[in-house]
Amino acid sequence: MTVPAPLTGVVPPVCTPLTPEREVDVPSLLRLVDHLVEGGVHGLFVLGSTSEAAYLTDPQRRLVVETVAGHVAGQLPVLAGAIDMTTPRVLSHAAAVTAAGADAIVATAPFYTRTHPAEIARHYRVIAERTDVPVFAYDLPVSVHTKLSSELLLGLAADGVLAGVKDSSGDLGAFRSVVTGARAHPDIRGFALLTGSELVVDSALALGADGAVPGLANVDPEGYVRLFLRCGEGDWAGARVEQERLCALFGLVGVGDPARMGGSSSALGAFKAALHLRGVIACPATAEPQIPLSEGETERVGKYLAAAGLL
Amino acid sequence: MTVPAPLTGVVPPVCTPLTPEREVDVPSLLRLVDHLVEGGVHGLFVLGSTSEAAYLTDPQRRLVVETVAGHVAGQLPVLAGAIDMTTPRVLSHAAAVTAAGADAIVATAPFYTRTHPAEIARHYRVIAERTDVPVFAYDLPVSVHTKLSSELLLGLAADGVLAGVKDSSGDLGAFRSVVTGARAHPDIRGFALLTGSELVVDSALALGADGAVPGLANVDPEGYVRLFLRCGEGDWAGARVEQERLCALFGLVGVGDPARMGGSSSALGAFKAALHLRGVIACPATAEPQIPLSEGETERVGKYLAAAGLL
Amino acid sequence: MTVPAPLTGVVPPVCTPLTPEREVDVPSLLRLVDHLVEGGVHGLFVLGSTSEAAYLTDPQRRLVVETVAGHVAGQLPVLAGAIDMTTPRVLSHAAAVTAAGADAIVATAPFYTRTHPAEIARHYRVIAERTDVPVFAYDLPVSVHTKLSSELLLGLAADGVLAGVKDSSGDLGAFRSVVTGARAHPDIRGFALLTGSELVVDSALALGADGAVPGLANVDPEGYVRLFLRCGEGDWAGARVEQERLCALFGLVGVGDPARMGGSSSALGAFKAALHLRGVIACPATAEPQIPLSEGETERVGKYLAAAGLL
Amino acid sequence: MTVPAPLTGVVPPVCTPLTPEREVDVPSLLRLVDHLVEGGVHGLFVLGSTSEAAYLTDPQRRLVVETVAGHVAGQLPVLAGAIDMTTPRVLSHAAAVTAAGADAIVATAPFYTRTHPAEIARHYRVIAERTDVPVFAYDLPVSVHTKLSSELLLGLAADGVLAGVKDSSGDLGAFRSVVTGARAHPDIRGFALLTGSELVVDSALALGADGAVPGLANVDPEGYVRLFLRCGEGDWAGARVEQERLCALFGLVGVGDPARMGGSSSALGAFKAALHLRGVIACPATAEPQIPLSEGETERVGKYLAAAGLL
Repeated sequence: MTVPAPLTGVVPPVCTPLTPEREVDVPSLLRLVDHLVEGGVHGLFVLGSTSEAAYLTDPQRRLVVETVAGHVAGQLPVLAGAIDMTTPRVLSHAAAVTAAGADAIVATAPFYTRTHPAEIARHYRVIAERTDVPVFAYDLPVSVHTKLSSELLLGLAADGVLAGVKDSSGDLGAFRSVVTGARAHPDIRGFALLTGSELVVDSALALGADGAVPGLANVDPEGYVRLFLRCGEGDWAGARVEQERLCALFGLVGVGDPARMGGSSSALGAFKAALHLRGVIACPATAEPQIPLSEGETERVGKYLAAAGLL
Repeated sequence: MTVPAPLTGVVPPVCTPLTPEREVDVPSLLRLVDHLVEGGVHGLFVLGSTSEAAYLTDPQRRLVVETVAGHVAGQLPVLAGAIDMTTPRVLSHAAAVTAAGADAIVATAPFYTRTHPAEIARHYRVIAERTDVPVFAYDLPVSVHTKLSSELLLGLAADGVLAGVKDSSGDLGAFRSVVTGARAHPDIRGFALLTGSELVVDSALALGADGAVPGLANVDPEGYVRLFLRCGEGDWAGARVEQERLCALFGLVGVGDPARMGGSSSALGAFKAALHLRGVIACPATAEPQIPLSEGETERVGKYLAAAGLL
Repeated sequence: MTVPAPLTGVVPPVCTPLTPEREVDVPSLLRLVDHLVEGGVHGLFVLGSTSEAAYLTDPQRRLVVETVAGHVAGQLPVLAGAIDMTTPRVLSHAAAVTAAGADAIVATAPFYTRTHPAEIARHYRVIAERTDVPVFAYDLPVSVHTKLSSELLLGLAADGVLAGVKDSSGDLGAFRSVVTGARAHPDIRGFALLTGSELVVDSALALGADGAVPGLANVDPEGYVRLFLRCGEGDWAGARVEQERLCALFGLVGVGDPARMGGSSSALGAFKAALHLRGVIACPATAEPQIPLSEGETERVGKYLAAAGLL
Repeated sequence: MTVPAPLTGVVPPVCTPLTPEREVDVPSLLRLVDHLVEGGVHGLFVLGSTSEAAYLTDPQRRLVVETVAGHVAGQLPVLAGAIDMTTPRVLSHAAAVTAAGADAIVATAPFYTRTHPAEIARHYRVIAERTDVPVFAYDLPVSVHTKLSSELLLGLAADGVLAGVKDSSGDLGAFRSVVTGARAHPDIRGFALLTGSELVVDSALALGADGAVPGLANVDPEGYVRLFLRCGEGDWAGARVEQERLCALFGLVGVGDPARMGGSSSALGAFKAALHLRGVIACPATAEPQIPLSEGETERVGKYLAAAGLL
């Protein structure tokens, strides 16, 4: 399908359920997609960070896109991450996910290598040139170790290189300069301004963002859809109540003991534990080398769900 | 072939010559391998950072390993990088490069994701378990954004997980603690202690390292081999003279204008320009999105070569 | 005077006007204070980052506090930074600024040294114990290189150690967890939740913050006061218009050429150039070793002022 | 006294013994100075990081310099840190320590503020202009968060601004470029090239450094003096044995539990515990807000001393 320009609404980065043997659990993935679509989301983003894209092999990545794109069959747009270190490798993924049915791709700046803004711009220009679907920039400094500047993003948007940005920088002031810059720019039309935050979606929408890509929407898609709708109606007080409930729920990402595991293990483990406890996926396993949550940590996930009215 | 335990000597991370269309230039790669072998090096490391592994597609990576392993045909050990974000993806590369003829693999800690030392240990244990060839750890904080601690390395070495380490951290004090720790440990035998430095190879060998993996050895393999031999003879004064000549030559990595390009573009561009000027490779192109050196910058590379007696 | 609990409203971090010889320009400082008070601000924060506290000698710091506290004479609260590396040095500043008339002090976590959360907590506990006035925490990771966690802040607030926080982390999601945590905590009363942002003051107030400490309020105090009032009235659309005007004005911090100077030189130089162009201070000099703006850069500051309706 | 140009040998950064009430313990400081002088050191560096300069108030700093300078009375040069955030504050300390008897000052680049190389150069030029004694640069990226480049250092050395550098960057390759650059430069004479490393002093001297400023020399001055002398005689094998003994001893900096305390607490606490156990100082207290070592941690310090033959 053609991705709306701009893309708006709630576009969850879809978790990738795994079997105990760490293979893609296709039935669980289908149930998760149904859970999201029934929750009212406006698009799906597969192979993002929350999808454990960094951990999936190429065949697994392909299987995920084929499964999800085949299942939604054009009901809503499917964006797919093309997450890799540099332009040529991103292009390989772009070709693969497009062939597998993705409607758009999402790419970060180069990482692992030492980059310069001119190289980042070149990176996106080359990707857009050689890819048939819209290209979204993914600003994720915690992983990529550079920040996409508003100058860079607005220049690429004005030249038609980018169809939108997912801002996961945590820096709402910087994101605002992209939002207001894009609104004011005569050559920018249909550029999607999406926040990757779970915690300030209401703030981002209030200052002009088009939508949100919150990992936590896997666990509670209805909540984020309600939040989006309330913002759209200008019901900021109602939105804040919903957002604060989701902020409290988001505390589940911290259940993992930091003496035993890193932040990815804890956050992704908690999302999957929550989906498992809610009956959506069959197994909460995360990919290697992540450390599994303990029983006690999983119980704490359950308490977060209960407190949010989700169990 | 079986990799010697420990691996010793000069093991250059082999540049990957590209055609103007950015395909692997196999004839140039063969000439480069001959240039290195004739220079007296003790092993080859393909698909490292200097090889632009981060930029090569999977078919290109495979072609490089097949070409080099086929050409040296067991004359000297061929290590291959299995550079990717996490365990499952590293395992895919490990299988591919092993099938293509690599004698050992080299892997970093996970990157892009947020890791914990326990996850890094698990990463290497899983890789070693599922790979038939020796596994070397690659400590490259500038790319990976974590440092492998000596406790971690020594624990993995003692358990037979790792066959060696390439230390590109720049922190010789920390490397020394691995060297002396390994020498003193009753369960560590044949663990290769390799520095990735270009600039303090004499220092590293003087404090007990087994060898070096200097990117600059592409340009001047004889120089690093001489340096290694002088250190082996205890001719520290002679080694220092050689090392200082190589340090001066290493200045070529800074020819690229930092206002126009990043450090990878400048350093890898300079190595390739030097190989081109020396007649080893047909084209100095680097992979996308790196910025090419200007004519003037390339001329400055030539001056460095001339000053080092290499033109 | 007694600082209101919680402190609310617009509390500008007051610039420190200097003479061409880099002494404190007292008449200009008095005019600046009048300009802010007439602009309707609710408190003054001297010796913060925007005040160039890092550059002022101890006698200069004392002179600033005496001048400002003496001039406002209890009309509105005067907070003073006690900015130094560790507890004992912060305590010296706390004693000095209190003696000079400050109504409260503002302190960062230790910096320069390698700190642990337990040491940061101890730091604030010792400071509060040995200081007679309320203590505000200053969260400024760009300078201090650690972030104050919400757990730490809420624990200290619950124990009565801290009277509030100035959050200059740029991370609104993290700040929100402090805001909602403080609102929900049975033992936290009167804890001031202040954002240090210039760009998302409306967002911060909408999610429950008590006030703002924006450096740009030196240049346009009326603007930030209007913004605060509109938020208080729930006029979010009007607030957004005002905030976007201020965001555009904030662009002046980028006038300095990054090839010639650092971010402090550019931002603080631009604030002072703006105050000079608006006729508030006699000289735009910044402290050593900052690089002065060029004539052309100063002209660009004037254009920002004109566009914002301030010239 | 006039500082030799270049300054050579072992110049320990002198610990600052404190009483249980955290006042400077003058009798212990005098004993520590005697212990170092009798150990054969070639100079003393007070008010460095190891001296807890970041924690000492201005009167304490002055007392330290007066005590030490008065006691050594010109027998050997006394360098004093002028550690603060920016030029004007460093100048205040420079004046104070010079008045108190220091023969030279040691200053870092600005910190806490966002700096540019041009500002760092200006910083040192202003300091040198307005200070009567030689100025040494202190390269300590772990605290200052910028690295002094070899270009910057060599330019300032050539202009007579700097009398030397203490390199505590841990990056021996970068230090080597300063060493060889200074040796080769026609305008640089008498510029002292000092490593701040404890672990690779032999390596640094082998590549041309003039001396070392190792914190661990507080605990074992004779060891570092022996190491320096053996290097001077070209007895590299003997030097390595001594250096490795000292490396093993340096393990004591890690006794503090990282779950309870930061790196400064552990390292400085261990140095002081060692001096206390060796009978040099009366009390091992470190300054606030550092966390004291536990009894068990102190016992482990004793074991390191015993293993090094120091108890």
